[in-house]
Amino acid sequence: MNDFHELNILPEGDLLQKLSRLRSLMSQRGMTSMLIDDNSNKYYLTGRVFSGYILVTQEKAVWFVRRPTCFSGKDVVRIRKVENIAEYVSPDELGRIGFELSLSSYADVMRYAKALNVTEFDNADEVLMAARSVKTDHEVELIRRSSDALTQVYSRIPQVYRPGMSDIELQIEIERESRLCGCLGIFRINGREMELNMGSVLAGDNADTPSPYDFAMGGGGADPSLPVGADGTVISPGMSVMVDTNGNFTGYMTDMTRTFACGRINEEAERAHRLSIDICKELAAMGRPGIAACDLYKKAAEMAEEAGFADRFMGHFSQAGFVGHGVGIVINELPVLSPRSRDILQLNNVIAVEPKFVIDGVGAVGIENTYVVRPDGMECLTRAPEQIITLPY
Amino acid sequence: MNDFHELNILPEGDLLQKLSRLRSLMSQRGMTSMLIDDNSNKYYLTGRVFSGYILVTQEKAVWFVRRPTCFSGKDVVRIRKVENIAEYVSPDELGRIGFELSLSSYADVMRYAKALNVTEFDNADEVLMAARSVKTDHEVELIRRSSDALTQVYSRIPQVYRPGMSDIELQIEIERESRLCGCLGIFRINGREMELNMGSVLAGDNADTPSPYDFAMGGGGADPSLPVGADGTVISPGMSVMVDTNGNFTGYMTDMTRTFACGRINEEAERAHRLSIDICKELAAMGRPGIAACDLYKKAAEMAEEAGFADRFMGHFSQAGFVGHGVGIVINELPVLSPRSRDILQLNNVIAVEPKFVIDGVGAVGIENTYVVRPDGMECLTRAPEQIITLPY
Repeated sequence: MNDFHELNILPEGDLLQKLSRLRSLMSQRGMTSMLIDDNSNKYYLTGRVFSGYILVTQEKAVWFVRRPTCFSGKDVVRIRKVENIAEYVSPDELGRIGFELSLSSYADVMRYAKALNVTEFDNADEVLMAARSVKTDHEVELIRRSSDALTQVYSRIPQVYRPGMSDIELQIEIERESRLCGCLGIFRINGREMELNMGSVLAGDNADTPSPYDFAMGGGGADPSLPVGADGTVISPGMSVMVDTNGNFTGYMTDMTRTFACGRINEEAERAHRLSIDICKELAAMGRPGIAACDLYKKAAEMAEEAGFADRFMGHFSQAGFVGHGVGIVINELPVLSPRSRDILQLNNVIAVEPKFVIDGVGAVGIENTYVVRPDGMECLTRAPEQIITLPY
Repeated sequence: MNDFHELNILPEGDLLQKLSRLRSLMSQRGMTSMLIDDNSNKYYLTGRVFSGYILVTQEKAVWFVRRPTCFSGKDVVRIRKVENIAEYVSPDELGRIGFELSLSSYADVMRYAKALNVTEFDNADEVLMAARSVKTDHEVELIRRSSDALTQVYSRIPQVYRPGMSDIELQIEIERESRLCGCLGIFRINGREMELNMGSVLAGDNADTPSPYDFAMGGGGADPSLPVGADGTVISPGMSVMVDTNGNFTGYMTDMTRTFACGRINEEAERAHRLSIDICKELAAMGRPGIAACDLYKKAAEMAEEAGFADRFMGHFSQAGFVGHGVGIVINELPVLSPRSRDILQLNNVIAVEPKFVIDGVGAVGIENTYVVRPDGMECLTRAPEQIITLPY
């Protein structure tokens, strides 16, 4: 256990690319240094989760490690507490520092400011989220691997389904298949407001039960302490079953939804499902560097309206205000495809697009794919068949 | 979906008891009001998770609900954003307000202070954690139900084990049994530093692989993005397999660990396991209102030392600094059983005690039980057999 353990396990070019992007965004904002504490940001810059901090300035990056104590490597400094960092940098060297103001607790930020003897600070989250929204080739590769594994999971769903199952029972079998295919189980979400276990299976009208969380769809959940997703509905003829399950197989998530039908679902639901596929195709063709994220949302909403599904688009009783979102280390990255989004698509954004509809008496229909933005359109990474798959009853 | 939905679903006496305890702790501290945003604290005071805030003063409690919009009830006010709260209360009425400074982000706290026009504020987390450490009878009942369900899960483990399995494969089958017994899957942890999927299965020497997280045991994990727990070790003769799996079946968690052995494990490991059972018994007898939490830790450490296991106690390469912790809505509540803890046991504390040992060439041994503090000792809620259970090979 006392072996040499290299802290930083990213391919070298990958780390340099990330640091260079971060430093350029820092400069634009007049930020001269940043202290990173959030696990997802530390994972972004090392390929590992560790207890400690990363300090990034224009000149250097230092990894201050508290635990495990076995990590070492270039520019790795062992510390016991954040206060020790002051022994290695002066307030002058830090200049205008950024902390993760939207992620770190108030108490932690106050402690950092005191420890480093700084009185003014900026929000590093915005810089980090902007940097992370543009994936490196290595990151795209990890998302591609997650996508391939998740595609395999979806292909197994008809085999684990048994007539008479509840949505929760089906979800449990999907979770197991998923874990057997290498899913890590954990589902990282930025911020503390949203919570979810491994994913969501929505059968029938439960799809329209509103949730406090800001996901695309709701669902009542199995218990008031986790009000989202499957609620125990027995899957019955004429119902749709929407499966949107955890795509974290590599530390980088992918996001895919497919719809199953118990026997035949009505023609309106089938039409809405085809519309979802069409919207995905249209947005994939439109999406390229320089396109406004809000224009993708508007196109989707327009197509929903033209087809007469405006009041079913992204829910019915309660409608989600977006049709897509960035994915990566967490499920809610940039860009956001919403009516007021100011994000502009960039090369190597990775975006989940999920035009979904809720049809009375049937449930949720539609698909979700994860795409990577290429010079001439968006390449789809999630390649399971998009048509509704019929389950026997 | 437009039915009347009562927001507050706690038994009435339960809510009054919680509010009265909170108000008394607030008074002691000179805090005249508090604004609650954290999901676990909102769940504590309503029995639900919702998007919005709870304002507690000495005179009133108001539930400001953003989502879902279908909730209503006594003192429920619909809002769109936190700024709307100012329309209902004046800075004078708020007085010295508490925010959740250790849980809410810096950006959120700044926003609350501005929205409510207050310049000084106190830390409500400490009051809330203190209040939550003493469970009401209703809360104990929910933990008891979780404990009974988890006991059932442990009884099924020998049936899902197959010789030649890896620790991850065994964990996946335990997760499935657990979910089928009603486990909600989500594992709530206070703070953002610790992460875990459904639980931990440690086989052989992986038990001694250090983790960045502050759990009792480590483990390398399946991927560097989640460095804790099972790492793919094939369960082989002579190894111990320690199972510490998610006990959240009701919104209130219980915490139990049991040890399995692949064939026979060596005598040293068996002795350490019996010592763990003895420490639990001793601490259960000692633990009563008025006893210092640090004295329970010291007793456990003393017993470990006397038996010659001091350097194996709570890990070997890396040793955890506690032997027990409060449990409830999250896994890391008060009191903490550590050498420097200043917590004093109170009636209806619910405490997980986990004296664990790591034995070279065998792995982790020991048990964990969850207890409720009664006037004459601690009552054990987790009632699976404590002896090592032998698995065939």
